[in-house]
Amino acid sequence: MSERGAAGPGPAAIQVSRIMRPDDANIAGNVHGGTVLKMIEEAGAIISTRHCNSQAGEPCVAALARVERTDFLSPMCIGEVANVSAEITYTSKHSVEVQVNVLSENILTGAKKVTNKATLWYVPLSLKNVNKVVEVPPIQYARKEQEDEGRKRYEEQKLDRLETKQRNGDVIFPVINPDRQTKEPHTVGYSQSSLIHLVGPSDCTLLGFVHGGVTMKLMDEVAGIVAARHCKTNIVTASVDAINFHEKIKKGSVITISGRMTFTSNKSMEIEVFVDADPFVDEPQERYRAVSAFFTYVSLSKEGRPLPVPQLLTETEEEKRRFEEGKGRYLQTKAKRQAQMQRAAQQ
Amino acid sequence: MSERGAAGPGPAAIQVSRIMRPDDANIAGNVHGGTVLKMIEEAGAIISTRHCNSQAGEPCVAALARVERTDFLSPMCIGEVANVSAEITYTSKHSVEVQVNVLSENILTGAKKVTNKATLWYVPLSLKNVNKVVEVPPIQYARKEQEDEGRKRYEEQKLDRLETKQRNGDVIFPVINPDRQTKEPHTVGYSQSSLIHLVGPSDCTLLGFVHGGVTMKLMDEVAGIVAARHCKTNIVTASVDAINFHEKIKKGSVITISGRMTFTSNKSMEIEVFVDADPFVDEPQERYRAVSAFFTYVSLSKEGRPLPVPQLLTETEEEKRRFEEGKGRYLQTKAKRQAQMQRAAQQ
Amino acid sequence: MSERGAAGPGPAAIQVSRIMRPDDANIAGNVHGGTVLKMIEEAGAIISTRHCNSQAGEPCVAALARVERTDFLSPMCIGEVANVSAEITYTSKHSVEVQVNVLSENILTGAKKVTNKATLWYVPLSLKNVNKVVEVPPIQYARKEQEDEGRKRYEEQKLDRLETKQRNGDVIFPVINPDRQTKEPHTVGYSQSSLIHLVGPSDCTLLGFVHGGVTMKLMDEVAGIVAARHCKTNIVTASVDAINFHEKIKKGSVITISGRMTFTSNKSMEIEVFVDADPFVDEPQERYRAVSAFFTYVSLSKEGRPLPVPQLLTETEEEKRRFEEGKGRYLQTKAKRQAQMQRAAQQ
Repeated sequence: MSERGAAGPGPAAIQVSRIMRPDDANIAGNVHGGTVLKMIEEAGAIISTRHCNSQAGEPCVAALARVERTDFLSPMCIGEVANVSAEITYTSKHSVEVQVNVLSENILTGAKKVTNKATLWYVPLSLKNVNKVVEVPPIQYARKEQEDEGRKRYEEQKLDRLETKQRNGDVIFPVINPDRQTKEPHTVGYSQSSLIHLVGPSDCTLLGFVHGGVTMKLMDEVAGIVAARHCKTNIVTASVDAINFHEKIKKGSVITISGRMTFTSNKSMEIEVFVDADPFVDEPQERYRAVSAFFTYVSLSKEGRPLPVPQLLTETEEEKRRFEEGKGRYLQTKAKRQAQMQRAAQQ
Repeated sequence: MSERGAAGPGPAAIQVSRIMRPDDANIAGNVHGGTVLKMIEEAGAIISTRHCNSQAGEPCVAALARVERTDFLSPMCIGEVANVSAEITYTSKHSVEVQVNVLSENILTGAKKVTNKATLWYVPLSLKNVNKVVEVPPIQYARKEQEDEGRKRYEEQKLDRLETKQRNGDVIFPVINPDRQTKEPHTVGYSQSSLIHLVGPSDCTLLGFVHGGVTMKLMDEVAGIVAARHCKTNIVTASVDAINFHEKIKKGSVITISGRMTFTSNKSMEIEVFVDADPFVDEPQERYRAVSAFFTYVSLSKEGRPLPVPQLLTETEEEKRRFEEGKGRYLQTKAKRQAQMQRAAQQ
Repeated sequence: MSERGAAGPGPAAIQVSRIMRPDDANIAGNVHGGTVLKMIEEAGAIISTRHCNSQAGEPCVAALARVERTDFLSPMCIGEVANVSAEITYTSKHSVEVQVNVLSENILTGAKKVTNKATLWYVPLSLKNVNKVVEVPPIQYARKEQEDEGRKRYEEQKLDRLETKQRNGDVIFPVINPDRQTKEPHTVGYSQSSLIHLVGPSDCTLLGFVHGGVTMKLMDEVAGIVAARHCKTNIVTASVDAINFHEKIKKGSVITISGRMTFTSNKSMEIEVFVDADPFVDEPQERYRAVSAFFTYVSLSKEGRPLPVPQLLTETEEEKRRFEEGKGRYLQTKAKRQAQMQRAAQQ
């Protein structure tokens, strides 16, 4: 195992590789974004748990707190190898930032493509007391600026987590699976969808809580159903907005993952996904909102080129408001990307 | 999730949707009946466990006791979405009746078909003492007749469970996997088959016993092997007779699922399936018959139309007797269906 | 991805890491040897397929031909991370030798242990014509002796493969699952066991044949059942003798994996495992022996120390002969290990 890495002995890099199988992909052979998100999260969980236990102290397990926005730059196919590498890039007193890169490799042709770059934040929870966050050993930075930039990223994500915590918490509006026959195509109600999953042993960490990656895989699955119902073509995940994991989900819970389309541009669809957990059996707690996020999908032709998508028909005031908000996020992302490209061109 | 439902606050309906994957289907792309049975049972287990824990009382897990006869009305394919909805339709003091409907949806064309309607009975077992059946909170009925009809269904299935318990228990005749080369094609011995499976953690409920749906999936798998060996074409599950789950199967057991053909009509094959469990290692208990059931299969042409099947060659007296019994079941079902159609035509 | 490695541009090393889950382990929490064998084989398949396609030529997929004897040096537990690294150490005209090392890492304590070292041989099969073996691009050796030693290993394994091909092919004696109640404990018949598995899409390579690792996992599973039935304690895989994969197994086949105990020393049990394949449905081919191998198991106390095992009761002449042969293998291995330790002590 490689013992190098930007940041001293503790947070050495880690690599995960796996051949993509038929069940990892859709009918067209494109690997689900959720499969990739799950591998990313597993690599992140390994490296941050390892780091947080690298000094004498309370044994702990790193729990996923947040994933920054990530773009799926190119689709992966069945038979290709996903190469996932992770390294720790910043530590605060109570959290770890992990940078993950995913390369798809066609082992027949040797062709390699960058599929994803993702940034994840983990928080170490005590193995003995799951409600206690333990201290993170600091990493060494090669240059002072690395630490400063990391601290800035840390402050920014902290703010965003606080905000969404309030937003997330307020109301729970269940997405009713409609009788699609009676709905007009391309309305919100026509494509909205739900999955229900009973949390089993292999879904969970040593602490008995669902791996963040398992949750993200299910979220991508429901978002994919919504997108396919809307445009009735081969669809792939284009990007996922930042996801905050505010509430843990325990083994034995039943989780409902619901998705509804919020916005369409010419060639993309934005889907909002909610995860609600029903604590199972011996828990007095009531159903709670565990996670929510926005997924963006595109529709692909048989040659793999983006197709125009049918425009979303909004009916209620709520739907119109959400559409406008989605448009805002879309324009903001577009502006950011253009600014980046200009900066890159100027260098 | 739908919060309505005929039956008051506790037993609200639930919906589960999932895209069908390659591992869910046979080589021809038709989804295994067993995949559908497993989804049906998972939805039933979630809704009945939730209901049985909806009032203060002993925490419990609902265990599958019985599935009523179910017909597979149309085949499902890889890439389609299976929409499974479940609701509680009757409660006795110690059992819950769940009605499940399955719709297959081609998300590309929007076409939808009813695939299955199934009725399941669950019994809540205490989380602390698996041998104790706890009390079921009563549901509210919209009309008095619903309760009366439910009670009638309850009494009928109770009788049938008692009967098969005696039948099931008497002898254990293992179906040995034959040396097919030496057998004549179309005999019982030629196609009879077994699967043997070690029960792992993901196969089990919180109580550490195999999910009824996992057992049914394996039963359908072996029945499908028997049918395919007999007629060497693409085969699909047409129906499953009522299945009673008398004996629980514990994690770590080795289960042998055996199937043999009992009867053929012009266009259908009936296969009897047995599940025998070997308690693992440190259990003093001996091998026991856990479940048995009859599956009916049809053979499909490439265009999806039913094909004639080769007639079963019976050799021993036993085989001839079972063939006649199968014929009896076949004629009875046929008569029932004709009566239903006549009633429907008269209305 | 690390691009170093002893051997030029093509055969760079590869690393695979994964957290061990409940489904990977037995009830006592010890990871199955078969889980490790499957990971080892996946790493080997990736690196050798990549290498064989590294030069312009016919696209091909590397198929496992042989695994050399491997010892399980220390058990792995749920929650630990398995770090698997593979590199190519020799190439002949038509085969690739891969060296794989497995480290178990407790990410809470940081403790690392070598779990396995394994050597695998792969043969590249044409993607267009699965019966054609394509040529392997040669690797560069840092020192001339590396090539000479590799050629020696190549010749040795080739001889052994030829030998077992003849042995394997001659007779097929299916191991019938006995009625355990009527057998005396500790006899061969009492513990012998089978698993029967229908080969699904996720079990297979791009060529539609079962991954060698999938087969090995099932072989270890049945050997573990035999060992546990014999000694009724917590058992773990201690070693696996060289395994030769003479016959491919196609998607849709039904495979029977049978195990019977052949020998016991004071603290170990040797189990012979057979894999027989039934080509499914539309194949004219008959049932054939695909693989066979010897697994050695030890029984562990709750503290993880080896326990004495009950001696095997041999009844027939055949069983006595196999016991003596097993004893021969045992003494030979023991002598080899002592010679190695002496050499090590003298250095």
